[in-house]
Amino acid sequence: MDKVSSIEYTIIGYIRTPFKEKKGIPIQPIFSQTDGRIEVLPRYASGLSDLSGFSHIFLLYHFHKVKGYKLKIIPFLDTIERGIFATRGPLRPNPIGISIVELTSVDIANHELSIIGIDVLDNTPLLDIKPYIPQFDHRKAKSGWISERKSEFPKMKTSDGRF
Amino acid sequence: MDKVSSIEYTIIGYIRTPFKEKKGIPIQPIFSQTDGRIEVLPRYASGLSDLSGFSHIFLLYHFHKVKGYKLKIIPFLDTIERGIFATRGPLRPNPIGISIVELTSVDIANHELSIIGIDVLDNTPLLDIKPYIPQFDHRKAKSGWISERKSEFPKMKTSDGRF
Repeated sequence: MDKVSSIEYTIIGYIRTPFKEKKGIPIQPIFSQTDGRIEVLPRYASGLSDLSGFSHIFLLYHFHKVKGYKLKIIPFLDTIERGIFATRGPLRPNPIGISIVELTSVDIANHELSIIGIDVLDNTPLLDIKPYIPQFDHRKAKSGWISERKSEFPKMKTSDGRF
Repeated sequence: MDKVSSIEYTIIGYIRTPFKEKKGIPIQPIFSQTDGRIEVLPRYASGLSDLSGFSHIFLLYHFHKVKGYKLKIIPFLDTIERGIFATRGPLRPNPIGISIVELTSVDIANHELSIIGIDVLDNTPLLDIKPYIPQFDHRKAKSGWISERKSEFPKMKTSDGRF
């Protein structure tokens, strides 16, 4: 068993959004109607082929403004500490974020995507784009502590800047 | 704008599965009923608190057996080349995989999770665990070239080892 301890990834582009600071950012894409753009580096342009048929994509990105990590945090939707892996907060051992966003246009010549429903800081480094495929990605699922906090969804849709 | 070109992540554990070689692995978790275990490194154990209420989790992991990347591939469910970002194939610029699996038990003392529906090689290095939250993660979505290939789903559920 080969046990390397770290892995290096390359930034493939940047997510451009109107959000210049953490406070006020939607806490999940589902709470966002904000437009954004994905600027993919030119050398990856041809990898964007065939994306235009998908209405939604996963973005995988690096939370570039967090420092260090915590194994327990108080998430936006709760008032008590939860294990970091039971939350979607950014202070993770590997600060990788996932957002599912709506894809509105694909411009391969300019290696750029237009999206709706983004929830990250401007210039967030992009690691990967994957198609969102309902046949693969839908589950009937129980959502732990979140389900007890449903009543708070309407009042907590944007970040208070705590992370 | 700070433009670093690469990012280093730490392996937080390993995904243990019965799959010792690429050929025959389910091509998506949705096609798998296979049990697996997540061996999280001891120092991250407390981050697993509160996970047990979730029936499903996202696993983010490193495709550790692929070499290099291709911007166009013929995906398992198709017969013609597609842009890599319009597929879920492993030969990506950053070979990060996502699987949504069912979480059947959480053993914090032994820093281990039991899961069902895994589709990766044994000893796949784990990068992150996130709760799957239907309220955040469900979308009514169009699935591009995949939707034209629905009729092939029954006959193509496992890898032929091409990647």
